[in-house]
Amino acid sequence: MKKVEVVQDVMSVNDTVAAANRELLDRHKIFAANVMASPGAGKTSLILKTIEHLKGKYKTGVMEGDVASSVDAEKMENVADAVVQVNTQKLSIACTLIANVVSQTLPKLPLDDIDVLLMENIGNLVCPSRFLLGAHKRVVLSSLPEGDDKPIKYPLIFLNADVVLINKIDLHPYVDFDLDFYKKTVLELNPRLILFEVSCKTGQGLEGWFNWLDAEIALIK
Amino acid sequence: MKKVEVVQDVMSVNDTVAAANRELLDRHKIFAANVMASPGAGKTSLILKTIEHLKGKYKTGVMEGDVASSVDAEKMENVADAVVQVNTQKLSIACTLIANVVSQTLPKLPLDDIDVLLMENIGNLVCPSRFLLGAHKRVVLSSLPEGDDKPIKYPLIFLNADVVLINKIDLHPYVDFDLDFYKKTVLELNPRLILFEVSCKTGQGLEGWFNWLDAEIALIK
Repeated sequence: MKKVEVVQDVMSVNDTVAAANRELLDRHKIFAANVMASPGAGKTSLILKTIEHLKGKYKTGVMEGDVASSVDAEKMENVADAVVQVNTQKLSIACTLIANVVSQTLPKLPLDDIDVLLMENIGNLVCPSRFLLGAHKRVVLSSLPEGDDKPIKYPLIFLNADVVLINKIDLHPYVDFDLDFYKKTVLELNPRLILFEVSCKTGQGLEGWFNWLDAEIALIK
Repeated sequence: MKKVEVVQDVMSVNDTVAAANRELLDRHKIFAANVMASPGAGKTSLILKTIEHLKGKYKTGVMEGDVASSVDAEKMENVADAVVQVNTQKLSIACTLIANVVSQTLPKLPLDDIDVLLMENIGNLVCPSRFLLGAHKRVVLSSLPEGDDKPIKYPLIFLNADVVLINKIDLHPYVDFDLDFYKKTVLELNPRLILFEVSCKTGQGLEGWFNWLDAEIALIK
């Protein structure tokens, strides 16, 4: 029993800190998205394409979560207006960003000078689904090579998402992925999900995501 | 401080139980592999191909770890000699199999009647790297569409692996993946790693893995 109680305690503390993070973001009129996916599903590519789209309209900050390394943050440095790297390897919870870590990291960003915050979570379909960070929207990427059974096997992350981007659609001719089956099962799980079919490599389908995002940002500003 | 102590306590209990699992497996002369990877990297396909290879020589049991669902166990049912499903969604640690769960699940398999146990871990590059299960070998799959930077970003799982299979090699023409860079970085991290380049879809390169596995099983029998 003891272990379960500790976990529950961690979760309730997390949600309180996440609410404080949201307040801080709202006070600065920053729209924040928590971007989650398996390793290599395309989170970094999506964020890079999104910053490019927002350029000239909004200033973008990135909170880059990785177990180790700063390779993704380095890719962001020349395109985002501000970047901060979080490495989780030595933290007690390594498999996801948690609200407390976000709370400690937010002051390292120039909050008065950014309009949008993209938080790239750790590559993981399990842990990030359990931890609120304070973001306004939770965005999940599924990539075609992972297979169409991910919503069945990792339901919680899809259940708690606002948007799902089905990425690497350019690989459809080369992999077995039943788009109709995927969409049917993920929408059965979470009927209010907004779905986009995209390729962050070719740009295919990203207009839909950009339009949705522009509308969400406008609500905050 | 409290949280860290709890985590350390969990880890030390885990390793003790893992050692007991190993003893139980050795007593029954069962060779066990802990198969780890990101979601959708090809764990299930590798296990299915491996059972097919072992058929006629050895009896194979599968411990199928999933957050939710039993879709993979159903695929195994007609090919493996014994299958047991573990769902972690309601457990205190959902993102990996842990030694205690393996210990409770092993008695559900006909231990006197199997020679090889393939444990399919939860799709995750973070949590499984921390938890010994009692398996003789730790096997990691990396798939080409995930990108060649996974060893840099998720070092611990590669550091603790015995074998890495670079899977979905048939997709090489369609994705950006620098094989030389991948091999160089993963071997710098763990020079004693055994590497195979394979496609579990086409069968390409699997002979090397089968030969290695046959030799390892022979050491136990």
